[in-house]
Amino acid sequence: MKIALAQINPVVGDIAANSGRMIDAISRARSEGVSLIAFPELSVVGYPPRDLLLKPRFVRANVEAVHRIAESCVGIAALIGFVEANTDNVGRRLRNAAAYCADGKVQAVCHKSLLPTYDVFDEQRYFEPGPDVTIIEHLNVRIGVSICEDLWNDEQVVGRQIYKRDPVGQLASGGAQLLINMSASPFEKGKHAFRRRLFANQARKHHLPIVFVNQVGGNDELIFDGASMVFDADGQVIAQGKPFDEDLLIVDLEAPTTVQQDTYPSPIASVHDALVLGTRDYVRKCGFDHVLLGLSGGIDSAVTAAIAVAALGADSVTGVGMPSRYSSDHSKSDAESLAVNLGIEFRMIPIGEIHETFESNLTPHFSGRQPDITEENIQARVRGGILMALSNKFGWLLLTTGNKSELAVGYCTLYGDMCGGLAVISDVPKMMVYELARHINERAGREIIPQNTIDKPPSAELRPDQTDQDSLPPYDVLDAILALYIHEEQGVEEIIAAGFDPAIVQRVVRLVDVNEYKRKQAALGLKVTSRAFGVGRRMPIAARFRY
Amino acid sequence: MKIALAQINPVVGDIAANSGRMIDAISRARSEGVSLIAFPELSVVGYPPRDLLLKPRFVRANVEAVHRIAESCVGIAALIGFVEANTDNVGRRLRNAAAYCADGKVQAVCHKSLLPTYDVFDEQRYFEPGPDVTIIEHLNVRIGVSICEDLWNDEQVVGRQIYKRDPVGQLASGGAQLLINMSASPFEKGKHAFRRRLFANQARKHHLPIVFVNQVGGNDELIFDGASMVFDADGQVIAQGKPFDEDLLIVDLEAPTTVQQDTYPSPIASVHDALVLGTRDYVRKCGFDHVLLGLSGGIDSAVTAAIAVAALGADSVTGVGMPSRYSSDHSKSDAESLAVNLGIEFRMIPIGEIHETFESNLTPHFSGRQPDITEENIQARVRGGILMALSNKFGWLLLTTGNKSELAVGYCTLYGDMCGGLAVISDVPKMMVYELARHINERAGREIIPQNTIDKPPSAELRPDQTDQDSLPPYDVLDAILALYIHEEQGVEEIIAAGFDPAIVQRVVRLVDVNEYKRKQAALGLKVTSRAFGVGRRMPIAARFRY
Repeated sequence: MKIALAQINPVVGDIAANSGRMIDAISRARSEGVSLIAFPELSVVGYPPRDLLLKPRFVRANVEAVHRIAESCVGIAALIGFVEANTDNVGRRLRNAAAYCADGKVQAVCHKSLLPTYDVFDEQRYFEPGPDVTIIEHLNVRIGVSICEDLWNDEQVVGRQIYKRDPVGQLASGGAQLLINMSASPFEKGKHAFRRRLFANQARKHHLPIVFVNQVGGNDELIFDGASMVFDADGQVIAQGKPFDEDLLIVDLEAPTTVQQDTYPSPIASVHDALVLGTRDYVRKCGFDHVLLGLSGGIDSAVTAAIAVAALGADSVTGVGMPSRYSSDHSKSDAESLAVNLGIEFRMIPIGEIHETFESNLTPHFSGRQPDITEENIQARVRGGILMALSNKFGWLLLTTGNKSELAVGYCTLYGDMCGGLAVISDVPKMMVYELARHINERAGREIIPQNTIDKPPSAELRPDQTDQDSLPPYDVLDAILALYIHEEQGVEEIIAAGFDPAIVQRVVRLVDVNEYKRKQAALGLKVTSRAFGVGRRMPIAARFRY
Repeated sequence: MKIALAQINPVVGDIAANSGRMIDAISRARSEGVSLIAFPELSVVGYPPRDLLLKPRFVRANVEAVHRIAESCVGIAALIGFVEANTDNVGRRLRNAAAYCADGKVQAVCHKSLLPTYDVFDEQRYFEPGPDVTIIEHLNVRIGVSICEDLWNDEQVVGRQIYKRDPVGQLASGGAQLLINMSASPFEKGKHAFRRRLFANQARKHHLPIVFVNQVGGNDELIFDGASMVFDADGQVIAQGKPFDEDLLIVDLEAPTTVQQDTYPSPIASVHDALVLGTRDYVRKCGFDHVLLGLSGGIDSAVTAAIAVAALGADSVTGVGMPSRYSSDHSKSDAESLAVNLGIEFRMIPIGEIHETFESNLTPHFSGRQPDITEENIQARVRGGILMALSNKFGWLLLTTGNKSELAVGYCTLYGDMCGGLAVISDVPKMMVYELARHINERAGREIIPQNTIDKPPSAELRPDQTDQDSLPPYDVLDAILALYIHEEQGVEEIIAAGFDPAIVQRVVRLVDVNEYKRKQAALGLKVTSRAFGVGRRMPIAARFRY
């Protein structure tokens, strides 16, 4: 039996376009002699549809699309992900479902049993769990269909069984001969290897082959990395879809060949590729064809610019240098070198005159108080205003360039350098930003990010001779503390016990806590770690728990 | 049996202070001869604790506090809301629980069975449902304890049974003689009357008295209105706690008296009181003692200022007038009159010079393009920069003044008039802003909001002779369409069928959809309707479903 894994990149809510893409894939697969084509979870609407699911006409439109797609299933069968209305008069109104389509119509519907409601996932907000699993019979093969999380309730690999039900176990004991898992599993650094372990373990445990078909593409902060896989009953990978790109992966289950080499990129390359895909898709799916960003000569804006160029092409990126009286010569020259290396348009708009006018108009209202962070913020906000004016005038999307370490401790100005529609590297800790910079240069085989940008001490240059380390601990220390506090949810005592200076730990933790208000208004940021600021981390603001 | 309903105002996460407040209430109740005191849901940690729940030390600290509070329960029993670790090795790690404390220790623990996961609620993100209901025996009375949502699964009143279980029915059939419901039920306009109907229906259905004890106070965007109630077995209210204030309501169940008059305020007064409480608590719980806001002479900033003064006192509010070349004389005089009426400090900082410098520095970069919305946004951003500079210099919290109708259609400038830490009226539609203005003047018995501010046509004054109605339909039409689209989730066809102009409906709906990106970065706003922008409405941004 020839199976196709249709790793498509849907636009959330664009039911017409997504359906068209699916009908096209069905037609291509049929011409390749495929007997069954499987699509990702909720493929008709794109994942995650979020509160679009609360619109009754949205659900109706998606059901109509399923029937249209089913009509194209002649001489081939398809498994398509969609939203089904729950016809029971008790429980939530929807189910996360898969339609088995053959002979021009929907033959059976399978339901997701386990509904992830943690991190970025909110499925119990919308869906009622399926009451039971469904095995479909296709060409005399009994196929157990599951949807994403259904396969993840594996204490051995995941560490805790968070659900009482085990739908994959039910499918196996119900006589399934092949398992198909339709997924929308977002990227995180290291998650591909985890998925391989998990799926291999499930295959071996039930001694059944598993087809895992994953969504690809960026949808808001989530980046789906594709990299669909087929496992044999021994847990060996016998086919692998492209990472970070659309693919139609065709596998003949009667003539399997073992994949010798995992084509998935190295960890740092995977973060790079994820950010490129996430940036490209956010920009294009929002309807933009050009972006701009401020270039300070520093590492964050340099890496963000390089990612933007990889995502959109050099002609679609404008860099803006906005020197102030505190800007060093190397800032300007490093920014210009970067722009030349990337081949992007570069504009220089000094902020001096606006900055001075702001200050001279405000000083009389400051009642003789000393200069402080206020004056630094004014500069950052003048820059934000200039970038937003260009964004408004030319219809360009503004990328913001802050990294995760800064955002964690609030080393950034709200309405200043935080201005922008997409925060490309806001889930990348500072030390990983350096790693990305070196990776970008290695990959290009030449200097894209100026070496001086990589080598010099980081500085916001908002007052004379400032460096980041005037206010913050060294970034290797900061990043290590942040990982324990934010990712591991450790408390101050545990972090100190891990060997860090108590005063520094307390200071960092306090900064993270008191800066929730800034993150509340931060630009949407691309998620690449297991715990990103954004929809997956929901902290109260007017709150007082410390440490 | 004398019961106390301890309607407390906790600070989220401030376990020490919340515990202290609870121990104090226990002591006062004991001195009044109370035999059982009931606290709201999760009273030890404050509702909603959100992702603080994922910190193991947070849960440990809350359990330790429960035992400390229990030690004070001598000569009196207490029901206290807290987070319990789930000791089962399957399922989520926590339970939403209530401890029955007597004789100095925890005697029994009850668990919440129904976990709301819709609108602003995310309880299935954290909690495992209780496996069964618990009846405690107190002074030979069998008391059925339920927590908030447990009592809401009432198809007759709510319209749909969204859970299969009915814990209150189980408690009744299990022999409970009295029902106690420990709640953290947030305010919405009209919800108090709904709660009365719901609880009365449950009391009559099971022929049991019900004690409903509710949290009070503002926690981020949610405002809890208190107004705890005791119902007899016929569904009559026999006692009622204060709305929008802390209270220790003591009821002798053997000597009940019917409450003749519902003390709850009228709908518009309830919105006013909710906004006052929500503003006061957000400001104070964030550690501020002074706020500022821009005063344009218009109705939105006037109503916001009046609410701020009611919340914090006139000495804690500064108004700032920032006229531009487009500002009319009446704008300046109306803003000044308002400040005089409220007795607040008023500063005038004209934006002309900064505005001109911005324009003269940017125009060369605009490549001969015509003036457009860009220039209007620059003015708004200069004002935002001035207000933020004052906020930074003096440590004042900036209130933003936009209303819900504007925020819905994006008639506001990101990083301009959207600057601020709290959006006081961002869930109040424009027509209700007028209603609030009239209510504020009526309540004061004098002109607080200048009559000219109420009477004149609304204008952003960002270009000569501009009025809102140049860009938007009349506000009564706009608000009616928005209510159908946002609150009722109706589609374009349905809204047109309700009698609105097709072109206007399509335009409004499109504006709502394309402005999700602005709301992503909006200030936290106080929720007063059933569907506010904020955590209760989660829309994708890079999405294409229309209508």
